[in-house]
Amino acid sequence: MHFQISDQLIQKIQYLIETKDDEELLLHLEDIHHADIAEIITELSLDEATYLVKLLDSEKTSEALMELEEGVRERILDKLSAREIADELVEMDTDDAADIMNELSPELQKQVISEIQDEQHAEDIVELLRYPEDSAGGLMAKELVRVKENWSVTGCMTEMRAQAENVTRVHSIYVVDHKNHLKGRLSLKDLLTASSDANIRDIYIPNVDYVNVHTEGEEVARIMQKYDLEAIPVIDEMRRLVGRITIDDIVDFIKEEAERDYQMAAGISEGVEADDNIFKQTRARLPWLLIGMFGGLGAAGIISGFQDTMSVFPKLLLFVPLIQATAGNVGVQSSAIVVQGLANGSLKGNIIAKRLVKEVSLALVNGLCIALIVFGISHFGFGTSFRESISVGIALIAVILLAAMIGTIIPIILDKNKIDPAVATGPFITTSNDVFGILTYFLIAKAILGF
Amino acid sequence: MHFQISDQLIQKIQYLIETKDDEELLLHLEDIHHADIAEIITELSLDEATYLVKLLDSEKTSEALMELEEGVRERILDKLSAREIADELVEMDTDDAADIMNELSPELQKQVISEIQDEQHAEDIVELLRYPEDSAGGLMAKELVRVKENWSVTGCMTEMRAQAENVTRVHSIYVVDHKNHLKGRLSLKDLLTASSDANIRDIYIPNVDYVNVHTEGEEVARIMQKYDLEAIPVIDEMRRLVGRITIDDIVDFIKEEAERDYQMAAGISEGVEADDNIFKQTRARLPWLLIGMFGGLGAAGIISGFQDTMSVFPKLLLFVPLIQATAGNVGVQSSAIVVQGLANGSLKGNIIAKRLVKEVSLALVNGLCIALIVFGISHFGFGTSFRESISVGIALIAVILLAAMIGTIIPIILDKNKIDPAVATGPFITTSNDVFGILTYFLIAKAILGF
Repeated sequence: MHFQISDQLIQKIQYLIETKDDEELLLHLEDIHHADIAEIITELSLDEATYLVKLLDSEKTSEALMELEEGVRERILDKLSAREIADELVEMDTDDAADIMNELSPELQKQVISEIQDEQHAEDIVELLRYPEDSAGGLMAKELVRVKENWSVTGCMTEMRAQAENVTRVHSIYVVDHKNHLKGRLSLKDLLTASSDANIRDIYIPNVDYVNVHTEGEEVARIMQKYDLEAIPVIDEMRRLVGRITIDDIVDFIKEEAERDYQMAAGISEGVEADDNIFKQTRARLPWLLIGMFGGLGAAGIISGFQDTMSVFPKLLLFVPLIQATAGNVGVQSSAIVVQGLANGSLKGNIIAKRLVKEVSLALVNGLCIALIVFGISHFGFGTSFRESISVGIALIAVILLAAMIGTIIPIILDKNKIDPAVATGPFITTSNDVFGILTYFLIAKAILGF
Repeated sequence: MHFQISDQLIQKIQYLIETKDDEELLLHLEDIHHADIAEIITELSLDEATYLVKLLDSEKTSEALMELEEGVRERILDKLSAREIADELVEMDTDDAADIMNELSPELQKQVISEIQDEQHAEDIVELLRYPEDSAGGLMAKELVRVKENWSVTGCMTEMRAQAENVTRVHSIYVVDHKNHLKGRLSLKDLLTASSDANIRDIYIPNVDYVNVHTEGEEVARIMQKYDLEAIPVIDEMRRLVGRITIDDIVDFIKEEAERDYQMAAGISEGVEADDNIFKQTRARLPWLLIGMFGGLGAAGIISGFQDTMSVFPKLLLFVPLIQATAGNVGVQSSAIVVQGLANGSLKGNIIAKRLVKEVSLALVNGLCIALIVFGISHFGFGTSFRESISVGIALIAVILLAAMIGTIIPIILDKNKIDPAVATGPFITTSNDVFGILTYFLIAKAILGF
């Protein structure tokens, strides 16, 4: 039963758009879920996509628009009039509408708002635009079910019926006093199982989690995950209930966070999307490559500082790439584990010292294995002298130990100084390990070979 | 109002445990959320933690146990009798209970099951244990609200009241026929707004998303996210409704997936946890280090193959670390973007060719910047001759182009061959880029310097 997009379907739709066979087109798309409509739109040309958006019911396209990638959506919105955008926004929940508005120019925002007939909806959207996108205020929706503490269960059911019409999904019912101060919540289950002559005051749960409009999105995600919440109410500075955040918005948020961390580890900043332009991509990537470049030049400086050694033991140079690769890999492994531990909160307090001891022991085990293999291959394979091979092996162990320590400690230091430790993974840790690794290698070789 | 764990609180609790002041202890922990109890338990010694788990109401500890990290939970369960474990499981939803059972030995599983008084609950748990942990069957819970299509709205409300008692959270009401075949669903909102003499048959939504017990977890996560579902029903081979999966379990799943991908990119396989033992950690990490090691030895082979060049232009060797670092960094950047695009489905069909063109253009821009800087520094800083510096610069551009292409193509090829492209990031891509990069460097230098 799951929808599967196919080339035939796309071709059929393109043909129907070309021949302007609106009736057939509507028939074809009638039963398709808005998330699938979004998939179809992505496969069409901009003109075809715009044609479809204008043709279909805005109830359907408004949801499809939300599913599109930002770049695709922006190009389609560019082709719509303020009036047409307003029609889409009216069908959306306020949080989605505010997200779309954030993508428009200030002038267009004003025009669109003036085209929205439903004044309350327009006011709600304008209110949400006041908050930073990543704050609880920017994430929340205004739609929610709100009951007063002095109502009866029966009265509450009647009132809820009316309110539920405007809310896509009822998660929790929030209980407020006459000043709209948040008092607690009521689960639908409690309401269903309560006797009908009970009073809301007697059955609501006063101990409710909430966040403030200014709470950061990351903190909202942490609280909702920790306490397994599907929705959380948002209050303003006066403790008044002003909105709620639902878990589906937080799922998107968590995914975006994970993608950003992943990119950061790969040396890409700014949360670039694959379809961003070359200028933006360069800005996100080049700085990290320059860090690597300066590291490489530093390594060149170190090698040229050991020129005497080079002329006596030229074979030592063969193993520079090996030393560098191993130092980089070990450092990235250690830092990734630490960064994850810091991110999910499992790494704190007295565990940090234990962690360092463990990483170092682990490095020792791995280092011994690798050093033994390399010793064998360099001595018997590359004909390196026994003493040279021994120094390569010992240097490898030292380099691995050092890399593990740097990889463990740097993220912890950054975290303590309130810098996102994710920046420490990827090129940053690789580069510092490259440089320290090569320096250690030559120092140890020099000490052992005694020149 | 948010709970903040503190050293004083921990010390107080440790003191109360030591003096066995159960009454005071219960009073202190009464109002603390189970997720916070879990945080407290993590800070205690094993004996203290066990004392607390045995003392507190199993309604509270069962939920706290689920929040603990697997390693901590295992150690505590080890200290409990089969009877005590059974008491915890009775309080849990079946999916959580099955997860715990999966962590026990087969003999202990049998003992625990025989200690569970509620036969239906025991049967449900045993049923869930039959499915692989990462399948829909392994993720689902048996608790759900189920109504028959021929019931009236009033009858349905009465029946639901009874069923809701056993369900922690009511997401959706599922509609089945007399053979328990899934027919559709009913939102609580629809039920609330329906007239009480209506029939379920007239108001339910027949078009319901569902998954099969054998559907893989990853696919369940994809469907639930794509269609913004908070719960999805699970059917068996006979189309009978057997369970449901809720979004909170999927959030955990998505996070675990993201962590695995992140670790893979850092060269750690198997989804290791920070507190796994050294043997397991070595098994997850050493293979990747060995890949890097063999790459390094390959590079050593290449360098020794160009020994003639080395003796005439020894300064070329200074820039080997730079070439290697740059090739690695560029490759990881390109592959990370491609792997993410493949994972979130934005990269497919005709976009792939466009992507390659873009990555190459981007590489050209970055390559030109870096080559210019390196040319300047090597010529004026390291006193490398003009022709040598030119060959380093040109080689750098070539290496960056090659690395971008390898980084883009390898994940796509793996994906086409149904291999998780995430393995292509990290050490794998770095190592191949190291080797190809160094080879390209020497070949270009040789061609330009003409020896």
